[in-house]
Amino acid sequence: MIRSFFLSPEQQQSRGLSLTEIGRVRDSGQGLLWVVLDRPDQAELLTVLHDTFQFHPLSIEDCGNEGYQTPKVDDYGEYIFLISHALLPQNQDLADLEMRELDLYLGRNYVVSIYRSAEMPPVERVWNRLEKDDRLFKNGADFLCHALLDALVDDYMPLIDSMDDEIEWLEDKVLEKPSPETLQRILALKHATLSLRRVIGPEREVVNRLSRDEFDLIAPNHRIYFRDIYDHLVRIQDLSESVRDIVSGTLDIYLSATSNRLNEVMKALTIVSTIFLPLSFIAGVYGMNFRYFPEINWQYGYLYVWLLFAVIVIAMLLFFKKRGWF
Amino acid sequence: MIRSFFLSPEQQQSRGLSLTEIGRVRDSGQGLLWVVLDRPDQAELLTVLHDTFQFHPLSIEDCGNEGYQTPKVDDYGEYIFLISHALLPQNQDLADLEMRELDLYLGRNYVVSIYRSAEMPPVERVWNRLEKDDRLFKNGADFLCHALLDALVDDYMPLIDSMDDEIEWLEDKVLEKPSPETLQRILALKHATLSLRRVIGPEREVVNRLSRDEFDLIAPNHRIYFRDIYDHLVRIQDLSESVRDIVSGTLDIYLSATSNRLNEVMKALTIVSTIFLPLSFIAGVYGMNFRYFPEINWQYGYLYVWLLFAVIVIAMLLFFKKRGWF
Amino acid sequence: MIRSFFLSPEQQQSRGLSLTEIGRVRDSGQGLLWVVLDRPDQAELLTVLHDTFQFHPLSIEDCGNEGYQTPKVDDYGEYIFLISHALLPQNQDLADLEMRELDLYLGRNYVVSIYRSAEMPPVERVWNRLEKDDRLFKNGADFLCHALLDALVDDYMPLIDSMDDEIEWLEDKVLEKPSPETLQRILALKHATLSLRRVIGPEREVVNRLSRDEFDLIAPNHRIYFRDIYDHLVRIQDLSESVRDIVSGTLDIYLSATSNRLNEVMKALTIVSTIFLPLSFIAGVYGMNFRYFPEINWQYGYLYVWLLFAVIVIAMLLFFKKRGWF
Amino acid sequence: MIRSFFLSPEQQQSRGLSLTEIGRVRDSGQGLLWVVLDRPDQAELLTVLHDTFQFHPLSIEDCGNEGYQTPKVDDYGEYIFLISHALLPQNQDLADLEMRELDLYLGRNYVVSIYRSAEMPPVERVWNRLEKDDRLFKNGADFLCHALLDALVDDYMPLIDSMDDEIEWLEDKVLEKPSPETLQRILALKHATLSLRRVIGPEREVVNRLSRDEFDLIAPNHRIYFRDIYDHLVRIQDLSESVRDIVSGTLDIYLSATSNRLNEVMKALTIVSTIFLPLSFIAGVYGMNFRYFPEINWQYGYLYVWLLFAVIVIAMLLFFKKRGWF
Amino acid sequence: MIRSFFLSPEQQQSRGLSLTEIGRVRDSGQGLLWVVLDRPDQAELLTVLHDTFQFHPLSIEDCGNEGYQTPKVDDYGEYIFLISHALLPQNQDLADLEMRELDLYLGRNYVVSIYRSAEMPPVERVWNRLEKDDRLFKNGADFLCHALLDALVDDYMPLIDSMDDEIEWLEDKVLEKPSPETLQRILALKHATLSLRRVIGPEREVVNRLSRDEFDLIAPNHRIYFRDIYDHLVRIQDLSESVRDIVSGTLDIYLSATSNRLNEVMKALTIVSTIFLPLSFIAGVYGMNFRYFPEINWQYGYLYVWLLFAVIVIAMLLFFKKRGWF
Repeated sequence: MIRSFFLSPEQQQSRGLSLTEIGRVRDSGQGLLWVVLDRPDQAELLTVLHDTFQFHPLSIEDCGNEGYQTPKVDDYGEYIFLISHALLPQNQDLADLEMRELDLYLGRNYVVSIYRSAEMPPVERVWNRLEKDDRLFKNGADFLCHALLDALVDDYMPLIDSMDDEIEWLEDKVLEKPSPETLQRILALKHATLSLRRVIGPEREVVNRLSRDEFDLIAPNHRIYFRDIYDHLVRIQDLSESVRDIVSGTLDIYLSATSNRLNEVMKALTIVSTIFLPLSFIAGVYGMNFRYFPEINWQYGYLYVWLLFAVIVIAMLLFFKKRGWF
Repeated sequence: MIRSFFLSPEQQQSRGLSLTEIGRVRDSGQGLLWVVLDRPDQAELLTVLHDTFQFHPLSIEDCGNEGYQTPKVDDYGEYIFLISHALLPQNQDLADLEMRELDLYLGRNYVVSIYRSAEMPPVERVWNRLEKDDRLFKNGADFLCHALLDALVDDYMPLIDSMDDEIEWLEDKVLEKPSPETLQRILALKHATLSLRRVIGPEREVVNRLSRDEFDLIAPNHRIYFRDIYDHLVRIQDLSESVRDIVSGTLDIYLSATSNRLNEVMKALTIVSTIFLPLSFIAGVYGMNFRYFPEINWQYGYLYVWLLFAVIVIAMLLFFKKRGWF
Repeated sequence: MIRSFFLSPEQQQSRGLSLTEIGRVRDSGQGLLWVVLDRPDQAELLTVLHDTFQFHPLSIEDCGNEGYQTPKVDDYGEYIFLISHALLPQNQDLADLEMRELDLYLGRNYVVSIYRSAEMPPVERVWNRLEKDDRLFKNGADFLCHALLDALVDDYMPLIDSMDDEIEWLEDKVLEKPSPETLQRILALKHATLSLRRVIGPEREVVNRLSRDEFDLIAPNHRIYFRDIYDHLVRIQDLSESVRDIVSGTLDIYLSATSNRLNEVMKALTIVSTIFLPLSFIAGVYGMNFRYFPEINWQYGYLYVWLLFAVIVIAMLLFFKKRGWF
Repeated sequence: MIRSFFLSPEQQQSRGLSLTEIGRVRDSGQGLLWVVLDRPDQAELLTVLHDTFQFHPLSIEDCGNEGYQTPKVDDYGEYIFLISHALLPQNQDLADLEMRELDLYLGRNYVVSIYRSAEMPPVERVWNRLEKDDRLFKNGADFLCHALLDALVDDYMPLIDSMDDEIEWLEDKVLEKPSPETLQRILALKHATLSLRRVIGPEREVVNRLSRDEFDLIAPNHRIYFRDIYDHLVRIQDLSESVRDIVSGTLDIYLSATSNRLNEVMKALTIVSTIFLPLSFIAGVYGMNFRYFPEINWQYGYLYVWLLFAVIVIAMLLFFKKRGWF
Repeated sequence: MIRSFFLSPEQQQSRGLSLTEIGRVRDSGQGLLWVVLDRPDQAELLTVLHDTFQFHPLSIEDCGNEGYQTPKVDDYGEYIFLISHALLPQNQDLADLEMRELDLYLGRNYVVSIYRSAEMPPVERVWNRLEKDDRLFKNGADFLCHALLDALVDDYMPLIDSMDDEIEWLEDKVLEKPSPETLQRILALKHATLSLRRVIGPEREVVNRLSRDEFDLIAPNHRIYFRDIYDHLVRIQDLSESVRDIVSGTLDIYLSATSNRLNEVMKALTIVSTIFLPLSFIAGVYGMNFRYFPEINWQYGYLYVWLLFAVIVIAMLLFFKKRGWF
C-alpha cells in the first residue's frame, strides 16, 4: 500500500499523489513530500524506489532484505538512507521483544518511509498527527524525519518502565523466597536487555551522526532535535546497563542462597546420621544371639545401654556445637 | 516556590524579584541574578523558563521529566543547560541511595537552578552562604554555578567514608565468621557502588567538559575550579572501583569458605557412615536366628566379634589417614 | 592450474592467455585481465606471481604459506594484496568450520586470485557468471575484486541461518529437558561463533579500509559496493554476538538446572534418612536380648512402639515443613 | 618541620633558610632551592605554601587533605603541582601495603616537597645524597624533581621482587597440597596487586605527561629521565598483571582440586553405603522372629546367606567397575 | 665475548675489529658494522657501550638490568635502542617458556646486539649466514636489524605449532575421558599463552612503530620488511587468543563433566538408601522381641512381610521413574 502527503510551495495540502506526480515533485525540489510504503510487495518497492525515486540499487536491496538488519545511516549525497527499528513487546512478555524494521529515505524535500513485516504504530501516529499539528510539515523534510524517529524511540520508554517494575518485583522476590521460576524470569529479563542493547547501540550511533554536523540535508538548527533523541537513547542504555547489573546481583544472591540451602540440608543429614548410626550399631550389638554374652544377663544391662546411648548423643551434640554446626 | 537573588552592577543586593524584573535583568546582561525554582509546579516552570527566560523547549522538557536522567551538559550558545544529581543516603542504608536531580541554566549574568522531587540541602547551603560569603556573587555566574556543583559533590564524600567503614567491618567479618547476612551486606554494598558509578561517570564527563576550554560562558581563570571538582569525582570513582574489587575478593573468600565447610561436613558424614555401616552389618549377622549357626555357640564368640569390630575400625581409620582425611 | 580471462580495450573477450600475453597486458595497463591460480604448485606460483607479474617477494611468500593467515590488505602502490577466507561447513557440522584462504592481487587493469588448499566455490560461481553478466568486466578491476569478495561473504549467510536454527532448537531443549548432550552442542556452537568472530573481525577491517578513500585503485563510486559488504559483515558479527549471549544464557540455565536437581536429590535422601534412621534405631532397641527388659513384657508394648514411630514421623514431617523442604 | 637547601647562582650552598630568604629566592628566579615540609602542621603549611610561595589555594587544599588522593599533575603556569605515593609494606605483610602521599611543587628554580602522615624514606635518601652527589643540584629543579620521583619508584622494586618470591612459593604449594591458608594467601596477594595497580596506573599517566613535551618547566633533554621512570612503571604494571593471571590460574587449580576431593569423598560414601545397606537388610530379614520361617531351619541356611552376601558384594563391585568408579 | 663484522665502503669484509677501529667506523658513518656482545661482563659492557659508542647512560643501564624487561623501542636521535625477547621452550615443556632478552642498538651504519643471560641461537644463525648471504650486509644497518628481529620471531612459530598439537590432543582427551591431569595440562597451556601474550603484545607494538614512518634510520623501502614481521606477530597473537578460547571451552566441558558425575553418584546413593532404609526398618520391626506381637505368630507372616518389601521397592522405583532419575 502506498500513501502520500504533499504540501506544495503555496502551502496547499494534497494526498494520494500518483507516481508521476511524485516523480515531478522529487525533481522540482520544492514543497514537502512524504511517501509511506506500508507492507509493499516487491513490485511496488521497485516501482517507487527504483523507477520513481531512482535510489541506489544497494539501498533498495537493503529495503527488500528479510531478517534483522543493524541500524545504520548511509549518505548518498542527494539523500540519506536510514535503517532503524521499532521495539514492540509481544503478549506482555518482556523476554520476547519484536523488532520491526523501519527504512527511511530523507531527501531535500521528501521523506520516504518503508516497513515490510507488519503494521508500524509509530508511523501511523505521526500520519494521524498531520491533520492536527502543522509543525510536522512546516519545518522541512529533516524535521519530519526527526518526528518519525522520535515516535519510534518514544515507544521504547514504556518498555523500560515495565522492565523497571519487573526488576523491583524480582529483587523483592529473590530476597524473600528465590525459586527456579524467579531464576528463569531473571534470565529472561537479562536476555531482553541484551536484545535491547544490540538495537540501541547502533541506533544511538546513527542518531549521534545525525545530530552532529555531518549531513547537509539536516539544517543546523534542527540538529538539537536529533540530539534530544540521542539523549533519550543514552538514558535507555543507562537503564539497560542498570538492569544487567541488578540481574547479575540477583543471580549472585540466588546462587548463594541455593548453595546455603544445600549446606543446610547436608548438615541436617550428617547430624542425624552421625547420631543414629552409632546408636543403631550398639542396639545391633545387644541384639546378637551369642550364647555367652555377659551384658545380656546383667540386671542393669538395659539401664546401662540407655546410659551409653545418652553419652553418645551428648558427646556428638557437643562435638557439633564445637564445630559450629548449630 | 520561586526565590531570587540579584546583585546590581552598582553592587546592591535585592531578593524576591518579580518576573518582570527578572526578565529585565536577563535582557540587560548586567549584574548577577540567581533564580531558584524549589519544587515548582508545571505552570511555574513554564512561566519562568519559557515565558521569562525563553529557554529552548527541549531543555524545559528535560526539566519537567519524571524519572532518572543521565547527567549532561548542553550548550545553547547564550546559555548552558546542565543536569546533575545529589546523592543522599536514605535511613542510614548504604544500599538505598537516593538520587535527586538538580537542573542548572548558566547564562552570561544569571544562574537558574531547578529541583523538583524533594528539598535539596546543597542548594540550601549555598543560598544561606550568600549572606556571609560575598565571593559567591562577586565572581560572576560561572563561579556561582561552580559553587552549586561543588556543594553537590561535597555531599558524596561522607557517603564514601561510610562505605569505607562498612568495607573494613565486612573484611574483618568475612575473615572471622562469614554468614549469609555478611553476603547480603557485601552484595548491597556492591549494588550501591554500581549506582554510584552510574552517576559519577557521566557527572565526571560533564565537569570535565566544563573544566576544558569548551564553553565561552566559563572564564578561563575559573576553569581550574571545575577541574578541582573533576579531581574530586576521579577520587570518588577510584574509591568505588576499590570497593568493587574488595567486594569481589570477599565474595571469593565467602564462597570458598562455604565450599570448604561443605567438604568438611561431607567428610564427617562419610567417615561415620563408612565405619558404622560395616559394624552394624556384622552385628546384624550375629542377630540372625538360623538354627545352625556355628559362631553363636562358640565360647569366645562374643570376644571374637569385638575383635572383628576393632580390626574394622582400625583398618578404616588407617585408610582415612592414608587418604589425608584427617 | 592457471585460468585467465581478458577483455581487450576493443571489448573483445579471450581466455587461456599465455604467460607472455599476460605480461604484455599487465604492462599495457589497458583492458581487464583476470587470472585464477587454482591449487597451483610452487613452480606455477613463482612463474606467474614472480616472473610474470613481478609482485613483491613478501606477498608471494604469504601466498605460499601453509596454515591460517589473518585477513589483511597491503598496499604496494601499483597493486593491492588481499588475504581473505571462505567459510565452508564440513559434514553439516557447525562446530567444524573450514576456512579456505583466498589471496587476491588487485592492479590497475587486472585481478589475480589464488587458492591453494581445495576448490573454491565462490570463485567458481563468479567465473561462471562471466558469460552471463557483463557488469562483472565492464566496470573495471576493482568491481571484479568486489564481486569476488561479495561471493565469499554471501556464503557466510546460510551458515548464520543454520546457526540461528540451531540456537532456537537448543533454547527450547534447554528449557524442556537439558542433558549433557545439549551442553555439548551449546559449547560446540560457542566454539563455532568464536572461530567466526576471529575471521570476521579482521575481514571487516579489511573491507572497511577498502570502502574508505584509502586506495587509489578503487574508484570513488565503487567504494559504496565495498561498504555494502562491510554492512553484511557487521550484521554477521552482530548475529554472532547474539549467539554468544544466548549461549551464555543457556549455559546459566543449564548449570542452575543441574544444581537444582542435585539439591532435590539431596533433599530426598536427607528426608528418607532422617525419618528412617531414628525408626530403625528404636526397632533395634527392642530387638535387644537383655534379660531384664521391662517394655518387652508389657501387654501393649507393641502398640506403644508403633505410637512412638508415628510420633517421630509426624515430628520430622512438621520439622521439614517448617524448613520449607516440601 | 621545615628544612631547606639553597644553591646560589654563585654555586654556594646554604641550609635552613628563613621564610623571608625563601621568598626572596623564589622571586629572584635564580639558583636552586629545595624546601622539605616534613609532617608540617596546618599553620606551617599555610605560612610556607600560601604566604611565602603564594601557591593556588586549590593546590594547598590538596596538600592538607586527609585520605587517599589519586596521583595527578596540575600545571599552574609558573609551577607544576604533583601528587604521588610511596609504597611501603607493613610488617613484612604483602597484603597490607601502606601508601604515603608525597606532594611536590616544581617551579623555575625551586622544588617544594610535602609529606604529612609519616616519615618518607625516599625523600630522606635524596636529602642525604645532597652532600655526596652534586648532579642533584647542578641540573636544575626539574632534575631534582626527577630524582625524588625516581627514589619513590625505586622502592616499588623490592616489593615486586618479594611478590615474585611469594608467587613462586604459592605455585609450588598449590600443585603439592592446597589448603585454605594457601587460598587466603593467594587472595591477599591478589588484593595487593589490585592496590598496586590502582596507584601505578595514574602514577604512570603522570610520569608519561612529564616525559612528553607538555610542560615548559621540564627541559627537553631531561624528559628522557622521566621516560625512564615511565618504563620502570610499565614494567611493574606488567609484572602485576602477571601476578593477577597466575593468581587466577592457581585459583582455578585450587577450586578444581577441592571439587575433585568432594567427588572422591562422595564416591567412597556411596560405595560403602551401596554395599552395606543391602547386606544389612538381608541380615535384618534373617533376624526377624516369625514363627513360620522356612530358611531359618534349613541346615545350610547360614552358608546360603553368606553366599548371598558374597553375590551382592561381587555384583556391586562389578557395577562400580563398569561405571568407572575405581 | 665481543665479536664484530665490518664491511668497508669499498666492500671489503673484516672481522674481530679492535675497539679503536670500531670507534673510528662509528665516527666515519661509512660502511656497515655489526658488533655482538655475547654474555659480556659489566666491564666489557661499559667499555663498548659507554666508552666506544658513547650511548646514553639510561639505555646502558637497561642493557645491564637483571630480570624481565618489557619490549620497547627508544629513539635517541642518532641511534635507536630496542629491547626484544627470544622465546625458547625448556625441556619440551610448553608451560615453561624461557624468555631471553636481546638488546639492539641501530645506528646509521652499525648494529650492536647484546644478550646477557645465555646463548642466543637466532643471533648465531644470522651470524653464520653472513658468509653465505650477502643481502644481509648489502642493504644497510636497518636491514640487518630486521634480519635479527625476523630470526627471533621465526623461533616463535614452532612453539605455536607444538601448542596447536597439544590443543588438538587435549580436545580429544577432554571429550573422551577428562582427568585431573588433563585439567592440569589445560591450565599449563593457558599459562603459557598468557606469557606469550605478555611478550608479543609490546613486541608487536615495537615492530609496528618500526614499520611506520616514525624513524629516520629505517629506509622507507625497508619498512615493508618490518611490516612483514608485524603480520607474523599478529598471526601468533591470533593463534594464542584461539588457544585461550579453546582452553576456556575445555574447562567448561571439564567442570560440567565433573558436576554431572557428582550428580550421578549422588543419585545412586539416594536410590539405594531410599530403598533399603525403609526395608531395613521393617526387618528391624519384626526382629523386635515383644512378647505380645500378633504378626509374629501368623502363619503367613513371613510371606506377608516379603509382599510388603516388594510393594515398597516397586513404589520407590515408580517414584524415581516419575522424577526422571533413571
